[in-house]
Amino acid sequence: MPAYDDLMAFQRTTEALAQVAGRTGWDQETMMPVGAAPQRAEEMAALEEVLHARRTDPRIGDWLEEAHAPDAAADANLRDIRRSYDRNHKVPARLASELARVTSLAQGQWATARASEDAASFAPVLAEVVRLRQEEGAALAAGTNRDAYDALMQDYEPGGNAADMAAMFDKMRPRLRALRERALGATPAPTVAGRFSAVQQIALSEEVAAAYGYDMMRGRLDTAVHPFSSGSGTDVRITTRVDENDPFNCLFSTVHEVGHASYEQGVDAAYLLTPIGRGVSMGVHESQSRSYENQMARSEAYCGWLFGRMRDVFGDIGVTSERDFYRAVNSVGSGYIRTEADEVNYNLHVMLRFDLERGLILGDLDVADLEGAWNDRFASDFGFAVDKPSNGFMQDVHWSVGLMGYFPTYSLGNLFAGCLMAAARRDVPGIDDALAQGDPSPATGWMRANLQRYGALREPTETIRHATGEDPSAEPLLAYLEAKFGDLYP
Amino acid sequence: MPAYDDLMAFQRTTEALAQVAGRTGWDQETMMPVGAAPQRAEEMAALEEVLHARRTDPRIGDWLEEAHAPDAAADANLRDIRRSYDRNHKVPARLASELARVTSLAQGQWATARASEDAASFAPVLAEVVRLRQEEGAALAAGTNRDAYDALMQDYEPGGNAADMAAMFDKMRPRLRALRERALGATPAPTVAGRFSAVQQIALSEEVAAAYGYDMMRGRLDTAVHPFSSGSGTDVRITTRVDENDPFNCLFSTVHEVGHASYEQGVDAAYLLTPIGRGVSMGVHESQSRSYENQMARSEAYCGWLFGRMRDVFGDIGVTSERDFYRAVNSVGSGYIRTEADEVNYNLHVMLRFDLERGLILGDLDVADLEGAWNDRFASDFGFAVDKPSNGFMQDVHWSVGLMGYFPTYSLGNLFAGCLMAAARRDVPGIDDALAQGDPSPATGWMRANLQRYGALREPTETIRHATGEDPSAEPLLAYLEAKFGDLYP
Repeated sequence: MPAYDDLMAFQRTTEALAQVAGRTGWDQETMMPVGAAPQRAEEMAALEEVLHARRTDPRIGDWLEEAHAPDAAADANLRDIRRSYDRNHKVPARLASELARVTSLAQGQWATARASEDAASFAPVLAEVVRLRQEEGAALAAGTNRDAYDALMQDYEPGGNAADMAAMFDKMRPRLRALRERALGATPAPTVAGRFSAVQQIALSEEVAAAYGYDMMRGRLDTAVHPFSSGSGTDVRITTRVDENDPFNCLFSTVHEVGHASYEQGVDAAYLLTPIGRGVSMGVHESQSRSYENQMARSEAYCGWLFGRMRDVFGDIGVTSERDFYRAVNSVGSGYIRTEADEVNYNLHVMLRFDLERGLILGDLDVADLEGAWNDRFASDFGFAVDKPSNGFMQDVHWSVGLMGYFPTYSLGNLFAGCLMAAARRDVPGIDDALAQGDPSPATGWMRANLQRYGALREPTETIRHATGEDPSAEPLLAYLEAKFGDLYP
Repeated sequence: MPAYDDLMAFQRTTEALAQVAGRTGWDQETMMPVGAAPQRAEEMAALEEVLHARRTDPRIGDWLEEAHAPDAAADANLRDIRRSYDRNHKVPARLASELARVTSLAQGQWATARASEDAASFAPVLAEVVRLRQEEGAALAAGTNRDAYDALMQDYEPGGNAADMAAMFDKMRPRLRALRERALGATPAPTVAGRFSAVQQIALSEEVAAAYGYDMMRGRLDTAVHPFSSGSGTDVRITTRVDENDPFNCLFSTVHEVGHASYEQGVDAAYLLTPIGRGVSMGVHESQSRSYENQMARSEAYCGWLFGRMRDVFGDIGVTSERDFYRAVNSVGSGYIRTEADEVNYNLHVMLRFDLERGLILGDLDVADLEGAWNDRFASDFGFAVDKPSNGFMQDVHWSVGLMGYFPTYSLGNLFAGCLMAAARRDVPGIDDALAQGDPSPATGWMRANLQRYGALREPTETIRHATGEDPSAEPLLAYLEAKFGDLYP
């Protein structure tokens, strides 16, 4: 099978360059001097040009025709390479390079404009990003029966489509709204208060990250405006953010990113720098971050341990019982910010973005009307008005970097997390006893053994099915939420 | 001139990728998790493969044949591209990739072995680096009348050669030895003592770096094992190191790297991401770092200001007069470490390396005999014995990353610095009065106006001649050293 070997040698170099590109993005968010932004945009465009040329190299087509897969891993590698080759062949090099350049600039302009609540200065560059992504979506949809939005979604969730997402949302919406109404009508949860120094928060986050299995010998933790995980293989970095008035933001952001990073760190070392040596989709990725963040770290068992640990670290934190602490951690409120939303409201935030971004890509919504559309929809869905752009349509980095089609995978991840944790609790009876001791390893160990180590060996839905033994469905998540929040807001 | 425009558009992407490669090297020294080293070696090899393919792209040959330079800057760009094209065409892609991979690994093994004084574990990988560099030197020398060592030197000092270096060293050696004998026979200089916290040292270094013109909006300061400057254009980063028992190591390392970084930051913005948009050679680069570090920061005038500032920051520092502080800063001693050597001993350290590395490349010295040869030569030149590898042949990172042919440019830089500062003091009478106020800007301003802004517009020797109006010579440096250390050790 020389064709397969030649293809994989070529691919390995491409994978290594993709890791460099990812880390250059990490650097941009964590280390880059502010004055370097225009030069960085040229650097990112240059990397994108090289990667695009490699991913569309005509030799790949020849190799793919001749290559035979000796085993299931090779078969999965060929499937992934073929998908990427077909995809990148549809996108002209000029467009790929332009997208890299514009999104790099737009990300910087988003950060600046967001800091000064300057929606007007962000709109032109966002319009340019949308225009380029529309063009890309149309190119990808050509010759398929997908529309431009579904075509874009394939990059994040192979096999996913807006109709399925809409059906999922239709099933979730009434039951989440009912939970929300119930919580908002009940006695408000207590809140923590105290002095939460940045240094102590970071130290606690590092301690918790290690307990959740994050390996600092193959990663590092820094701060950034928007928490994220970056890289695959032996260099998987995470970022978090710190609010000295709120100890939960840093801690749960960290555990969330540890979920993502553990997936990457957990993939079989034999898959290093191959197409299957990384998480299979954004939805499955988010199943890990949400399992870690919500189903483990926000569980009543783990909150019991965390209550004691936080009192050790910070002294008086304003609540005095494990139950009140658990209620504070899981307070259902009326916030503006998706990333700070509780488990009940979170998916409602995603539904809003899903509809708006689909409108942008399909041409039903102009960028000029985006802020108004967001604010109207938000008032209708959440019952109060957006007060400023950083609490509204400019809160997330995603659209500035062109990530339309990505948001719904967050909700899909929550759905998958529901399926996975139900299976883990079925298979491993001691999960909550260990969490009550501050030890998530029975749960994280189940994830590693049943999902993480396989990387992208199987397609997303099949990955969940293999781990759980069942077809994915929204029911486990909804049942979990109704049990948890029914107890919290009786 | 479409050929020139096409060539420069292609070149601009290559320059951007080279910036990424440089920053990936920076990351490896400052941010990379230890467990990522093998993967990083593959990433660096992948980048090198891409850069090599671009630098040997046959289209460059066609463009170079057709291109006409509309002005002096274009002429210099074409000269540089032609030199790089010819050079890289001589080196097989397989060898370039192998060099990148092996030197990346060797650098990690050097750091590990150095920390544990384990010369034996470093020798095999160093032998591999030497073998590859011999092969590269032979390839580069083919068709020229240069030997392999001179051929390698062209990458660092275009136009330089070992015969000129040897002649320079022959002229410097007796006068430096005489100064050394005089100093070691005189009353020893006083030494500073006190508590020098890492945090305060870094803060003082940042303050001083800013005064010397380093722009943090287009750079950043971190710590690393070996201080270095990295990058061109609008993202020029420096590192330093901190020894809590010695406040001078961090401070003067920083000023040294600020000299390098100021050269890169000072180049005309119109040259960004073009071949002339960076320092022209290592020798000219070192002229900047040594002017900043020695001729400015270690001057009697600046030491007067620094004495007061350091007492403000650290309290009692063990010396009580400006003159004693100046003597402590410029103490001539008997140390093992090149980077910590005083101005009198420094070039003697370089001469040792120059002869040994030339022997390695020309096959006159085996890596197996390197430690012994180093220790014998050191005892002969400096009069005392090397006590451990980290104080001997393993002290510098250079050979692990294949930088043979580089060391002599350090001395050439000192020579150029002597020429430049003599010219600056001739042209700008107020330099020392300003330095006495902690203000190096008259001197750094002269450097920016007369040298830095031109980047690589002119060849190295011509760059010095244009700035000073005279041919480079060792005489100004030797006269400066004899006056300074004749006064310090009367």
